[in-house]
Amino acid sequence: MAVNLTPPLPELLLPVRGVSLGIAEVGIKKANRKDLLLIALDQNAKVAAVFTQNCFCAAPVTVAKEHLLDSNSKLPIKALIINTGNANAGNGETGVTCARSTCSELARLLDCDSRQILPFSTGVIMEPLPLERIIFGLPLVIANLKSDNWFAASQAIMTTDTVPKAVSRQIVLDDKVITITGIAKGSGMIHPNMATMLGYIATDVAISQPLLELMMRSVVDNSFNRITVDGDTSTNDAFVLIATGYAGNVEISDNHSAEFRALQDAIQELAIQLAQAIVRDGEGATKFITINVEKGVSLDECAKVAHAIARSPLVKTAFFASDPNLGRILAAIGYAGINDLDVSRLQLYLDNVLVVENGSRAQSYCEQDGQRVMKQPEIIVKVILNRGQISMTTWTCDFSYDYIKINADYRS
Amino acid sequence: MAVNLTPPLPELLLPVRGVSLGIAEVGIKKANRKDLLLIALDQNAKVAAVFTQNCFCAAPVTVAKEHLLDSNSKLPIKALIINTGNANAGNGETGVTCARSTCSELARLLDCDSRQILPFSTGVIMEPLPLERIIFGLPLVIANLKSDNWFAASQAIMTTDTVPKAVSRQIVLDDKVITITGIAKGSGMIHPNMATMLGYIATDVAISQPLLELMMRSVVDNSFNRITVDGDTSTNDAFVLIATGYAGNVEISDNHSAEFRALQDAIQELAIQLAQAIVRDGEGATKFITINVEKGVSLDECAKVAHAIARSPLVKTAFFASDPNLGRILAAIGYAGINDLDVSRLQLYLDNVLVVENGSRAQSYCEQDGQRVMKQPEIIVKVILNRGQISMTTWTCDFSYDYIKINADYRS
Repeated sequence: MAVNLTPPLPELLLPVRGVSLGIAEVGIKKANRKDLLLIALDQNAKVAAVFTQNCFCAAPVTVAKEHLLDSNSKLPIKALIINTGNANAGNGETGVTCARSTCSELARLLDCDSRQILPFSTGVIMEPLPLERIIFGLPLVIANLKSDNWFAASQAIMTTDTVPKAVSRQIVLDDKVITITGIAKGSGMIHPNMATMLGYIATDVAISQPLLELMMRSVVDNSFNRITVDGDTSTNDAFVLIATGYAGNVEISDNHSAEFRALQDAIQELAIQLAQAIVRDGEGATKFITINVEKGVSLDECAKVAHAIARSPLVKTAFFASDPNLGRILAAIGYAGINDLDVSRLQLYLDNVLVVENGSRAQSYCEQDGQRVMKQPEIIVKVILNRGQISMTTWTCDFSYDYIKINADYRS
Repeated sequence: MAVNLTPPLPELLLPVRGVSLGIAEVGIKKANRKDLLLIALDQNAKVAAVFTQNCFCAAPVTVAKEHLLDSNSKLPIKALIINTGNANAGNGETGVTCARSTCSELARLLDCDSRQILPFSTGVIMEPLPLERIIFGLPLVIANLKSDNWFAASQAIMTTDTVPKAVSRQIVLDDKVITITGIAKGSGMIHPNMATMLGYIATDVAISQPLLELMMRSVVDNSFNRITVDGDTSTNDAFVLIATGYAGNVEISDNHSAEFRALQDAIQELAIQLAQAIVRDGEGATKFITINVEKGVSLDECAKVAHAIARSPLVKTAFFASDPNLGRILAAIGYAGINDLDVSRLQLYLDNVLVVENGSRAQSYCEQDGQRVMKQPEIIVKVILNRGQISMTTWTCDFSYDYIKINADYRS
């Protein structure tokens, strides 16, 4: 069902020096499914991460945040351990204890401090984590550690995803080849709130810790925080950016340098590809929708309009039906929460077709044109507010019978 | 498909002295369908109304608000004219001209000022209003005026509704029998924002204009503003409360009087019945869900939690599937927007089954109990925040295949 999304070619996923990955099948929820992933980092790796803002955040999110705060040059992050099949969310103190036990057992096996481990979980909420299976699996993922395991890793973190999501690219900085490889998972419960779903990007670039964090936030804001499938913000969302420093470039330490900008552009482009892949593989998706909101006064008001459109079940079902029932988009813009919006100045385009101007149907608009665009698998909705100079883009998908089917059946 | 909702019995709908209703079929969108309703008021009637806060409000909303502002003892509202099949929204200046022309032609026929007419439309957005059909229909609805036409009126305002919605009741105040009768329509694009959908309640009580308005706002806040079907706020929502003064009671002019309170209770109860009927007949609904949020600090935060749950597609599909996947409710509470929410103090009940306490699954909870409640057609979700003393209730429905079907097919 995914919209114009094919699995990555394993041979195009490039190892990142200093990063190895181990996968195992430990039977957390389903049989015959890889469900445990270890990402091991060499000593010098730097890590930056953001997590969900959901108050009911999962236990591993709580623990990972703590460990990240404790991490410093003496206690760098050594490993990320990720399980699918169970979110370890809504499990109270027991959940936190399980996440801590996972870290301390892995730390024992890797001979490091448990604060050097970041735990992640994804899956069903409010079911006890089968800790013994994860503990059982830790030696297996360690034994499986390889630098060219990125494709298997992208498969191991899938839940309702139908297609694994992974991308690599290389750029040259300072005469050195820099490799960037990332994986992500997510398909439902997708709505931005700092980070969305699980995403891991690693690069061998040398960069200072403060700039890695600065870059991470900017990248997330322009990629994973710009997508919505169903408007539900997960309890487990996390995005992690890793830089191992093995590329041999002079460490990037100036955020106004050409190197910083080039690296940020490359990582952001890769993050956008992963974020878009999540939407293309959105639960039940048959259409990939790009929403451009232009000429707003602030990013906040552009986001309000984009999210109102992207979240409206009426708009999403119209896309599914290929029905140019575009009044539903106007209604969503109207309730987005811009109190002083002058609708008579607004323009709405579907791809290059002008649909609305001066607050009503454009003179030039004819339904056949709208119909033609609505039938496409990829559609650009452009809303020009004509209030200011700020623009933003978000990506979403339609709402189909299969969304209901997937989410009515998910646990069974 | 409506959940525990049967059509009103016509003989139980009581005429309200001073109000007559005329219905006609004028072919606005579909053949063989009553689609024009005139509610005519005697000279002394008082009217209070609220309208949608959607910036893209329909032309008739703009005109009705203007006319209501102009209305006073010399220019009391004489008639409400309501068409279905076309929302007259997103039609720019042409739409406003059409709404004004409807009013002026009706005013000519009724021999009054056009400012004494309130126009309302409901149906598809951004299609030109077929004004000539409405003008053609005006003499027909006038010829059809009768005081016992409430049932036919409730049918005439239906769009995707499957069941007409109308209720009557009588109370005794000041030794006089007071009659209250109301009708409403609405099934999709339902999310509170001042008023929701079209609702008209008339009573023959004598009450001062300021108190009628005070009562109207309180009634709406506790009924129509407490429901959501799909989270989309319509461009055309309106609620109107009419008091004709024919009952012979001493005019109510003190909002601390027992009479005011008794009347408000009666009207509010009737409004809640109509509002709940809209949810029971929500597009594709198979379950009627009551959400009680208790012990919050403010009404605002209780509403945030209630709306997050009521709007979540994941929660709504779980209800459809009768799947006690209750972590989805926790996730919705977590992203509702209460920044300092302490989830460890929270309790969640499904009917009388305690599901969550101390931020995790209750010791006493077993899935069979959750399953049993989820299979019921009516379910009460109770969230106890344990932060303050404020509570609120909202009503919603589930998300089914039929929601997609209805909204993917609506225009065709």
